[in-house]
Amino acid sequence: MNLEPMLAPRSVAVIGASNNPDKVGHVILQNYIDAGYEGKLFPVNKNAERIGNLESFKSVLDIGEDIDLAVIAIPAPLVPQVMEECGKAKVKTVIVVSGGFAEIGETALEEKIARIAIKHKMALVGPNCLGVMNPRSRVDTLFLPTYKLGRPTVGGVSFMAQSGAVGSTILDLISSEGFGLSKFISYGNAAYADEVDILEYLIADKDTKVIVMYLEGIKRPKEFLELARRAAKAKPIVVLKAGKTAEGAAAAHSHTAALSGNYETHMALFRQFGFTIADDLSDLLYYAKILASESAAATGNRVAVITNGGGAGVLAADAVASTSNLKLAEFSAETVKALKKTMPILSSMRNPLDLAGDANYAIYGNAIDILQKDKNVDMFIIVALFQTPGADDRLANELVRYKNSIGKPMIAISIGAAYTQSHKTMMESAGLPVYDSPSSAAKALSELLKYSEYKRRRR
Amino acid sequence: MNLEPMLAPRSVAVIGASNNPDKVGHVILQNYIDAGYEGKLFPVNKNAERIGNLESFKSVLDIGEDIDLAVIAIPAPLVPQVMEECGKAKVKTVIVVSGGFAEIGETALEEKIARIAIKHKMALVGPNCLGVMNPRSRVDTLFLPTYKLGRPTVGGVSFMAQSGAVGSTILDLISSEGFGLSKFISYGNAAYADEVDILEYLIADKDTKVIVMYLEGIKRPKEFLELARRAAKAKPIVVLKAGKTAEGAAAAHSHTAALSGNYETHMALFRQFGFTIADDLSDLLYYAKILASESAAATGNRVAVITNGGGAGVLAADAVASTSNLKLAEFSAETVKALKKTMPILSSMRNPLDLAGDANYAIYGNAIDILQKDKNVDMFIIVALFQTPGADDRLANELVRYKNSIGKPMIAISIGAAYTQSHKTMMESAGLPVYDSPSSAAKALSELLKYSEYKRRRR
Repeated sequence: MNLEPMLAPRSVAVIGASNNPDKVGHVILQNYIDAGYEGKLFPVNKNAERIGNLESFKSVLDIGEDIDLAVIAIPAPLVPQVMEECGKAKVKTVIVVSGGFAEIGETALEEKIARIAIKHKMALVGPNCLGVMNPRSRVDTLFLPTYKLGRPTVGGVSFMAQSGAVGSTILDLISSEGFGLSKFISYGNAAYADEVDILEYLIADKDTKVIVMYLEGIKRPKEFLELARRAAKAKPIVVLKAGKTAEGAAAAHSHTAALSGNYETHMALFRQFGFTIADDLSDLLYYAKILASESAAATGNRVAVITNGGGAGVLAADAVASTSNLKLAEFSAETVKALKKTMPILSSMRNPLDLAGDANYAIYGNAIDILQKDKNVDMFIIVALFQTPGADDRLANELVRYKNSIGKPMIAISIGAAYTQSHKTMMESAGLPVYDSPSSAAKALSELLKYSEYKRRRR
Repeated sequence: MNLEPMLAPRSVAVIGASNNPDKVGHVILQNYIDAGYEGKLFPVNKNAERIGNLESFKSVLDIGEDIDLAVIAIPAPLVPQVMEECGKAKVKTVIVVSGGFAEIGETALEEKIARIAIKHKMALVGPNCLGVMNPRSRVDTLFLPTYKLGRPTVGGVSFMAQSGAVGSTILDLISSEGFGLSKFISYGNAAYADEVDILEYLIADKDTKVIVMYLEGIKRPKEFLELARRAAKAKPIVVLKAGKTAEGAAAAHSHTAALSGNYETHMALFRQFGFTIADDLSDLLYYAKILASESAAATGNRVAVITNGGGAGVLAADAVASTSNLKLAEFSAETVKALKKTMPILSSMRNPLDLAGDANYAIYGNAIDILQKDKNVDMFIIVALFQTPGADDRLANELVRYKNSIGKPMIAISIGAAYTQSHKTMMESAGLPVYDSPSSAAKALSELLKYSEYKRRRR
């Protein structure tokens, strides 16, 4: 199934476009305009001559130009006829955002639109979905206004989900993270395009560096597992699967009519295939950001912790030692000697290296200069608490500079409100992943190491 | 040890106050002024006649008025003499923020200041600490400027920590939460006032509804455990203890010269004493906010989940079923019948109750009206995703209204960026705890139930 015309269309028809701002079709059209979409845009509405400043058409059949994508936002019972018209008009791809299909028992209606798509060789995403977003080509079929749901910048992380609500929530969260989005695909009931088609597309997509997926059910388990087996060789895959418990599995079935299968069996296979397993929504972001930013593969499991807060260093040591595969590095004798020459008197020369509360960018720089030469250190966690007197813009800049030159995995922990958040965003936009708790940081490094080891085994 | 004059002083001397804005003593004095402290403020500096607009004194002995609190921010070797002067001047309480004592091996110097405090019957907090904050009496000895570290509003949660960095980080985080602060005490090396004295004070403090503590070591384990045994009967206690792993315990020792003791033994006792155990910094906030806001005790473990996002409902079901003590409620036949009459056609009438993406405040209201009558429901998780079309200020208001009338524990899950955050803050300020992930919400309800059961057993 060729999804490229859907994600980078030269022309888009919005069927159900409307002058009424309460209509989904209005919001979708407006979002295309707001996003600065540069292709051709055709509103389709049986009853309107114009929608906003654009000429409107009674049917896609009246447009008379090639249509790469038709976004359909009309009541479910009217969808089959409109899809037939799309087929006749040689529309390449279709997104049905409307609900009212299998999720409320209307399986016959859903099968009908799938058959129409297959007959006309149209790629179909949906129904009952949010659709797609691609900030590079300024494609945005979401029917949620931008003030409610932030739109991410261009980046390397792609996200796929059946669930529109989980999808929109993740998208909103990504919008306040520095790492940016490649593709977003919310595919709802998956009447035609399903996990297999979408994963296949994202594996092939050169702008996608990391694939993040939220799964409820898997429609074609055999094909999906066959594809999954080789997927993580191409790029990191982070997965959150709902239906971990019997209660969750029952709820997932009621939500998307999806059979969620045996959770543990799936997880065991996913692990074997090199997938990174998330336990919660927040994990998806924690893992995506380290996998997207980390150019250096992890070559060992010994972590150096540098901190300007003693207690935070202790918690980071606990968090590192609590993972299944990381440990605290033991500094070499040369390192300790060099540290003693350079470091403030209050510091102990042990790992975690406590630079004390008044450490500034220069003291951090000295410490990293020394530790990056230590062969006992494989990875860095830099605790930078911006509440302290010495931590400011210069520290954020210095850490980003080291991140880009150090040649070993490096992440930061910065926890706090407004002042901290602004520095976090700055560091993340420049490629340094920042975590808001010791345990999330340690978990992320642990998963990076697992993926690095998977890649080494598969080389 | 009477800490009341320290937390609600009628007069404060700042020893080491300075006109130089880079000095800690300058920041402390300025923070008192900025906070609008209404008691008497006396800068003490050997070399200055005036500090800002205030008359300055060469020594506390020159002030000639009752001093409730002296905050000492001068180099460590000078502290003993100044403390002797405080003793002679009948100063009631002293905070030594200066470092340079036991944490760098200067134990004799630390013992010396402890002896001086004991001799003169002065309460002493520190050395090597941030000091205290009490937004009610506008006491703020922190030497971190307000633009770097937000100051919380007045509330019912008190926080105690040895570590200044962990303390300031938590304080900064609390500043962006709605629940507010009662007392903050960072006690550093605990030369005199230690865990026992501070916990005792907070148990007796009528403005403190919930006590949150970050512990590295415990100085007097026997006395502490004796006190801890009866502490949670008085009010909920949330504890995060560092040194869970051997690596963390070693780092804690190096940080505050604290012997952290056996982590598992302590945790087993704390659990038995009814403490709420946090595993990470973020847990401290998650648990504090539910324990501070929840007027209704949990009387059972059956949770109803209401959601405007199907996927988020599924994840909430998984999260509830993954706790050790909660389960999803099964709606009664009357409930299902009533829901069928009222709910939108797209909803399933099961738990989690999916109101679909366009649910507005009125639909939520109908659902809660029906479910609150169901005897099979003990607690409520309301998933309110503000990215969706129907969720707005009216929904936030409606949920707060129900929270204050429903008579059963109720929390919300709202996940997202700016628009969501503003609604979260509004709901939390009005007493409805809001969580940013299904698992943190379920963990919080689970801990509330454990505490309610502990209280019932102890009645």
